[in-house]
Amino acid sequence: MSILVIEEAAEAEDWARHLRAALPHTEVLVWPELPDPDAVEMAVVWDDLDALAGLPNLRAVVVLGAGVDHLLGRLDAMPEGVACLRIVDDSVRAQMVEWVLLALVTHTRRWDDYREQQRAGSYEELPVPVPPDLVVGILGFGVLGRATGELLRDVGYRVRGWSRSAKRAEGIECFAGDGELGAFLSGCDVVVCMLPLTAQTEGLLRRDTFAMMKRGAYLINVARGGHVVEADLVAAIDEGRLSGATLDVQREEPMPAGHPFWSHPRIRITPHVATYTLARFCAAQVADNYRRLQSGEPLHNRVDLHRQY
Amino acid sequence: MSILVIEEAAEAEDWARHLRAALPHTEVLVWPELPDPDAVEMAVVWDDLDALAGLPNLRAVVVLGAGVDHLLGRLDAMPEGVACLRIVDDSVRAQMVEWVLLALVTHTRRWDDYREQQRAGSYEELPVPVPPDLVVGILGFGVLGRATGELLRDVGYRVRGWSRSAKRAEGIECFAGDGELGAFLSGCDVVVCMLPLTAQTEGLLRRDTFAMMKRGAYLINVARGGHVVEADLVAAIDEGRLSGATLDVQREEPMPAGHPFWSHPRIRITPHVATYTLARFCAAQVADNYRRLQSGEPLHNRVDLHRQY
Repeated sequence: MSILVIEEAAEAEDWARHLRAALPHTEVLVWPELPDPDAVEMAVVWDDLDALAGLPNLRAVVVLGAGVDHLLGRLDAMPEGVACLRIVDDSVRAQMVEWVLLALVTHTRRWDDYREQQRAGSYEELPVPVPPDLVVGILGFGVLGRATGELLRDVGYRVRGWSRSAKRAEGIECFAGDGELGAFLSGCDVVVCMLPLTAQTEGLLRRDTFAMMKRGAYLINVARGGHVVEADLVAAIDEGRLSGATLDVQREEPMPAGHPFWSHPRIRITPHVATYTLARFCAAQVADNYRRLQSGEPLHNRVDLHRQY
Repeated sequence: MSILVIEEAAEAEDWARHLRAALPHTEVLVWPELPDPDAVEMAVVWDDLDALAGLPNLRAVVVLGAGVDHLLGRLDAMPEGVACLRIVDDSVRAQMVEWVLLALVTHTRRWDDYREQQRAGSYEELPVPVPPDLVVGILGFGVLGRATGELLRDVGYRVRGWSRSAKRAEGIECFAGDGELGAFLSGCDVVVCMLPLTAQTEGLLRRDTFAMMKRGAYLINVARGGHVVEADLVAAIDEGRLSGATLDVQREEPMPAGHPFWSHPRIRITPHVATYTLARFCAAQVADNYRRLQSGEPLHNRVDLHRQY
């Protein structure tokens, strides 16, 4: 019985090496090396699902990410009855929390303004809010959204969360469903988008939802570019409805030349680098799921592709 | 019986207003308003100790900061037998954690490099370490040092702490005393100075302690300018021993024109703004200590000025 890694060359070798170390008695292959397609029980893949069709005994597919939205519309390529697993990893959580905090505090503590002042030789204090004054809203209260919200709460911010179905978290004000979206948004000084990308959340951040936000609110998007109607965001910032945005993700990646985000003075972008799913941290959970598959125990981190997260 | 606030005008009125709200039956005066010096039992002060001599029934002095180093050498002005209290406040902790995280992650996630790339229209990924790869050392493991270290641990960094006397904290490697300083420093990727400023810690960060650090380590100073020998820091960075520094505090504040920190490409400064002791958050604990003084209960947050912290 074997595991097949289907990824770009360097990353595939990295995953194979860490999986072999974790499972010394299991054959780990790197696509297109495939001496015996019948032997493959688990595939480890980012988005190349085409190879799966030739694996008659496949039982589980590990998608190398926290989100599976990039497989939307590819459901036909996912074999019937095969378990779909995602990666839920503490190193990914740590990177996510780190990036969100950096984007948030750069804004609230006026980090760029202080840098400009240093260049200008000025030692002036600038008025800034303190954490207990700031309401930070986490839009999308899944595993990573909750972990980020709880950490922000522990720093000292006033945190609220919004999700499709009702959630509870100590010291965090939770909102749910379309009916409570306006109430959620209207109280936030900063909105952090951590939603899964689904048919329901595509384009959720647009003109009419920006209009629900507090005047001068700030947007952070660390989910998917498809959550934001980009022209509406630029308009909302230019009109002063929003004070600015920091965006790790965009509709087209890499962003094309001439995109207004490149040069907008109140928009900061990074090139989809907030988190990496690293084999040296995550191979252990893939190996654990493989062992569970062998022993018939329940698998961890299953996703329902029809629900999309 | 009354409380006397000795501070600059606007801040003094702010403290008086919040103290009156918390203690509606107590007279709260603002210096130099002093109809009955005999009635003053508690003084609230930053650094102007001269007025204390004229208060024969003074029992407690609240120093408006987390540190009391600015009263070093002023011990003669602190009346004998009067309790000295400092401020230990959660809003100060939150601001401190926020500022340290911002300085730390700006460095580790190459935030300025990404900003430059945006300006240049480049969407390149830059190699950065992830939190579990980074050892962050908290130099000075008092109330604020511990709180910051614990939060950094919760984000996912590997945290170590150093203090004069041995401490323990879950998941944090603790070092103590001069004998363990070298072992502590040599393992840190980032050193965060949160020491009290005392005769023992003045100038602790200098040529020979920089030489104990890992090559390419980064320094963050959020304590006092006096902890750093500034010329040695510039030399250590220019020689490549340290990779850079972010400094909220400097030896002379405001920094004088021509100081090398203004224009050094690897040094970021802010004008001593990491934390503010705000009356609206901290008046409650001053009021609580005043009530304790009346009822004879033990006072909170006492400091030993001879130990200096």
